[in-house]
Amino acid sequence: MNCEIIAVGTELLTPHRQDTNSLFLTSRLNELGIDVLFKTIVGDRRAQLAGEVRVALSRTDVVITIGGLGPTEDDVTRAAVADALGIRLRRNPEIVGALYARFAARRALMTENNARQADVLDGSVILENSCGTAPGQWLDTVYGEHRKLVILLPGPPQEAKAMFDLECMERLRAVAPKRSIATRTLKAAMIGESQADARIAPIYGRYHDVETTILAHTGDLTIHLACGKSAMEMARQRVDELAGKIEEELDEYIYSSQGESLEQIVLDYLGMRGATLAVAESCTGGLISERLTSISGSSRSFLGGAVVYSNALKTSLAGVPQTVLQEHGAVSRETATALAEGIRSKTAATYGIGVTGIAGPGGGSDEKPVGLVYVAVSNGKHTSVVEQRFAGGREAIRFRASQQALDMVRRQLM
Amino acid sequence: MNCEIIAVGTELLTPHRQDTNSLFLTSRLNELGIDVLFKTIVGDRRAQLAGEVRVALSRTDVVITIGGLGPTEDDVTRAAVADALGIRLRRNPEIVGALYARFAARRALMTENNARQADVLDGSVILENSCGTAPGQWLDTVYGEHRKLVILLPGPPQEAKAMFDLECMERLRAVAPKRSIATRTLKAAMIGESQADARIAPIYGRYHDVETTILAHTGDLTIHLACGKSAMEMARQRVDELAGKIEEELDEYIYSSQGESLEQIVLDYLGMRGATLAVAESCTGGLISERLTSISGSSRSFLGGAVVYSNALKTSLAGVPQTVLQEHGAVSRETATALAEGIRSKTAATYGIGVTGIAGPGGGSDEKPVGLVYVAVSNGKHTSVVEQRFAGGREAIRFRASQQALDMVRRQLM
Repeated sequence: MNCEIIAVGTELLTPHRQDTNSLFLTSRLNELGIDVLFKTIVGDRRAQLAGEVRVALSRTDVVITIGGLGPTEDDVTRAAVADALGIRLRRNPEIVGALYARFAARRALMTENNARQADVLDGSVILENSCGTAPGQWLDTVYGEHRKLVILLPGPPQEAKAMFDLECMERLRAVAPKRSIATRTLKAAMIGESQADARIAPIYGRYHDVETTILAHTGDLTIHLACGKSAMEMARQRVDELAGKIEEELDEYIYSSQGESLEQIVLDYLGMRGATLAVAESCTGGLISERLTSISGSSRSFLGGAVVYSNALKTSLAGVPQTVLQEHGAVSRETATALAEGIRSKTAATYGIGVTGIAGPGGGSDEKPVGLVYVAVSNGKHTSVVEQRFAGGREAIRFRASQQALDMVRRQLM
Repeated sequence: MNCEIIAVGTELLTPHRQDTNSLFLTSRLNELGIDVLFKTIVGDRRAQLAGEVRVALSRTDVVITIGGLGPTEDDVTRAAVADALGIRLRRNPEIVGALYARFAARRALMTENNARQADVLDGSVILENSCGTAPGQWLDTVYGEHRKLVILLPGPPQEAKAMFDLECMERLRAVAPKRSIATRTLKAAMIGESQADARIAPIYGRYHDVETTILAHTGDLTIHLACGKSAMEMARQRVDELAGKIEEELDEYIYSSQGESLEQIVLDYLGMRGATLAVAESCTGGLISERLTSISGSSRSFLGGAVVYSNALKTSLAGVPQTVLQEHGAVSRETATALAEGIRSKTAATYGIGVTGIAGPGGGSDEKPVGLVYVAVSNGKHTSVVEQRFAGGREAIRFRASQQALDMVRRQLM
């Protein structure tokens, strides 16, 4: 069984935007043993989209459109799919009612254009949108004498994800072939792609039936393993065997063997130890806190911290002695240490993180160039400090610094 | 004149990889006044790619393939395009010679499969690859009685870019219409897509020659305008005229008329007023600080702040009186006010922001549901507080809260 994903939106045809929904969808479809053969991007033009839907129906079994289900004139997907299939749209009174209720609950007036979201392809099943207004649609139909599935999903990623997981997975599982794909995701921090690949290529090269993909993101490495077999047990065994060997080779660089993020792993470890964490951030400017608090339930272990961009705040909020700043400068081993120790004692946390550095592009000097970052972690008895000279632009330097800090805490907790 | 870009490669159909070449190509093509109507991704399968090339030839004037020009069995683009057009491939002896010379210069033996890279579509012009081995091809042909251009580019980004710039731009400019495209990007905060569209659709609906695209991201709205004319002056005038009318209609919701981010605008305004800002964040957990400090030079106006996840830190770092927390709870109008006023006075900033709320998914109650957020901004004399009930998941609620806070500061500074 195979599929074409059509992302709809003129903005996706500009140099500024990319379709990202199809990545998530592909991973889910692959889990179900459904191959993605084509991915297409079309603008918000009814005739072009209708033509593309016809092309997709002629070459794949399942056609999924993403986007163009909103209330505006630009939202042409419903009409275009109806054109392609030669069927009608009917305004569904129940959806209209639900839309009115949704607006009323938020004490907002529903404008007339919103009712377009209630236009439904004749014969389709309505897919509930748990995160937004536009419902999706699922149509089991016949095109050119072949059975085809057509699925309409909304464009906003969290809406598309929730709808696919809650409304489509089980329905697709019922019609998908019985082929099982086992996957594993390993993650490593603070090791380069080529360095890691040189070490593990001789290992995964011996597993021809396992697809190995290495993805490098600044300071973060993800190793995807996938294996398809007729029985899940066989696929699972091959993937686990290879994962075990890679973990052994990369050892302490591997922070996650099931794909969890580094911030999640740090919070898990803190929770297991009954420990707490506080952060004093200069050059990362809140990024470490933001990463940790993006995880639901982080308040159990993460107390908070200070973003100390100015020197005055380094002293007043994180307790860095003025003499340290005067003698060593804001970007120094000593200031990082004082930040970690200061925030730890101010907040009575088990661990304190201190980060200071030059994220650039301005502010560097010969002695203290852009990319110079000091990261310190204090546990009350001992404070470790690391000096790094990170490459890349402002965003990359900030991310690498946050990665370094979280990884140091992880290693202390291991 | 319009174009379809076909990215070739099975790896681009996995959940882990994205085509990025098309973004660069689109920007170049738009410069030339060529519209990109479709972008398609196809795997390394000859029959499927040949079919897709036929589809593309039937719906656009220029078809550009990227990838699949290497020496391996998987590199099927040359053969697939020949199939689609019903023409022959001929092995070009000059290219074979150049390949041998290239390998000899590196003292490497050329394996036979490399000669496949010398297979040329009958009638095509060879495009030199200044960064790699596989040459590209340019074919000016007729398909279905229409003149078509077919361009084959290699997959590695630096090879594709160099080849397009050095070998294709001038050739395309010679055939492209003499058309200039003017663009503008407006941004608005804290207004819903449908609400905004209901107000501006009657306006942009009268500008048929300006393509208007509205993009909604949680709490943030981007309006792209683009207009192509024979003279840049004419295109610019139409885009500016429409932009002016949209700005007038959406008035204070518009925060940027040139596409700048909200955090950039807030920092610009603070800089112009010689004012400074500090932030005390509970539910946003560092996100506001992170957004502000992602902008280079933010240290001139942004002092820093406190991430106060625990109640103890709300008191110790942001000076919230314990009685306020006891009487009104951590998520309350009073606590938001105390956070804004407390961090302002602790840091001696011109403006203080305080944010507290329930980002979920856990922690909500009937009285204080998930999504309830209080945002306060204090300027020393006066503190405004807003209560919001945001929809969406944790990430959306946190982003909307950060957007609300930055927008309140912007409005105070206007």
